[in-house]
Amino acid sequence: MAFSLYDASIPMMVRMLQNLSIILDKAAAHAAAQDIDPATMIEARLAPDMFNLARQVQSAADAAKACAARLSGETPPSHADTETTFDELKARIAKVIAYAESFTPEQINASENRSITIPTRGEPHVFKNGGDYLTQFAIPNFFFHVTTAYGLLRHQGVEIGKMTYLAGV
Amino acid sequence: MAFSLYDASIPMMVRMLQNLSIILDKAAAHAAAQDIDPATMIEARLAPDMFNLARQVQSAADAAKACAARLSGETPPSHADTETTFDELKARIAKVIAYAESFTPEQINASENRSITIPTRGEPHVFKNGGDYLTQFAIPNFFFHVTTAYGLLRHQGVEIGKMTYLAGV
Repeated sequence: MAFSLYDASIPMMVRMLQNLSIILDKAAAHAAAQDIDPATMIEARLAPDMFNLARQVQSAADAAKACAARLSGETPPSHADTETTFDELKARIAKVIAYAESFTPEQINASENRSITIPTRGEPHVFKNGGDYLTQFAIPNFFFHVTTAYGLLRHQGVEIGKMTYLAGV
Repeated sequence: MAFSLYDASIPMMVRMLQNLSIILDKAAAHAAAQDIDPATMIEARLAPDMFNLARQVQSAADAAKACAARLSGETPPSHADTETTFDELKARIAKVIAYAESFTPEQINASENRSITIPTRGEPHVFKNGGDYLTQFAIPNFFFHVTTAYGLLRHQGVEIGKMTYLAGV
């Protein structure tokens, strides 16, 4: 069966979001074991002008949601950035996993020969087809937030390794 | 034209390696402007038991090299991890970009229906086809190292933003 836009997007993002949820479980367990206020980790940043953990997780979820919506041509549900606990962040991820999994390969692959426009601070940017949008923006942007959330928690001392990121173990 | 394994791998990784090279330029400029020994940044880590910047860059280059090699069924060139300067790290990236760009879409897409085996600490892991290898391992692993290099340098105070990571600007 031919590899498709769907194969390169939805299953990979769902898998990584599941792993991110497990990473948050390990962060919560670390906070409990070390008697650290979970808010300390949820508000931690790698640099003063980077997003904190909550915004990194919200952005990873939004990146997957927007990718599914733009490739399928659907309007995504709106999710307010109100999460302040590990459980709330995991619920946000779960909502986006359910949304992403609601699409069929046919719905996603419909953008193979359709342009996709995204807003920017200046002029909207037009990708000539779904593949360009996915590989030049959606995938790099998604992984930026997942990996930054991971790195930020590693920097805070959470016991996670690359196998947690790659495979949820 | 149908989206393919090639589209989801080589052009995206080449683009991100080019952006990583620009990120290293900005790190070198920051070190020079602030009178920081470049070795301080090249040896910096986000956590004591994570790879330093040099190893993150070498690993990103290796991840792209291995991806091209495994999808095409070729044996990749060996690159020793000897780089200790920004210029040497950029040369390592350039070698891998040239290697990745030497493949045709046909060579890469040949793995669409072929299994791919990778070594692990335990039993080798078998992916049932090139698409599974790419989305379950090669892409997540590649972005892990690119984004960690970025985050590590942001943490060191280098003036880069997500647009440098996404688009090299």
